[in-house]
Amino acid sequence: MKATVHITLKNGVLDPQGKAIEHALKTLGFDSVAGARQGKYIELDLDESDPARAAAQVNAMCEKLLANTVIENYQVEIAG
Amino acid sequence: MKATVHITLKNGVLDPQGKAIEHALKTLGFDSVAGARQGKYIELDLDESDPARAAAQVNAMCEKLLANTVIENYQVEIAG
Repeated sequence: MKATVHITLKNGVLDPQGKAIEHALKTLGFDSVAGARQGKYIELDLDESDPARAAAQVNAMCEKLLANTVIENYQVEIAG
Repeated sequence: MKATVHITLKNGVLDPQGKAIEHALKTLGFDSVAGARQGKYIELDLDESDPARAAAQVNAMCEKLLANTVIENYQVEIAG
């Protein structure tokens, strides 16, 4: 079973990486860019056949390791 | 107009970050993890109202700056 996790900075948290991307794109002539924010994307392979149990496990992984829940949000999707 | 970009390593390209995540999750007791790969997730705000032109611009951004197309794949989604 595959799971994907998106980890993004919460609104209001400064995102220097995103600012750097925005600035670099503008320097390259992409003037339509009004903002950029960078997050993480993690694909997990799980030896688990029950989607509900897989989702519970991945949520626990996010809380314990993958995301810093003080400043980051995470979103888990389970794909067969 | 908002665009999201997923940048992932191509198959066959070593992913030490993913390996580190997999190892750390196993150390924490998540034994069901069979693999992990980490990519990037970028959200862009664009001053552009035409979805086709927005998609063309974001693809150009990926080719020129955001992705290293030798070792990375990218996927662009345009959301109203």
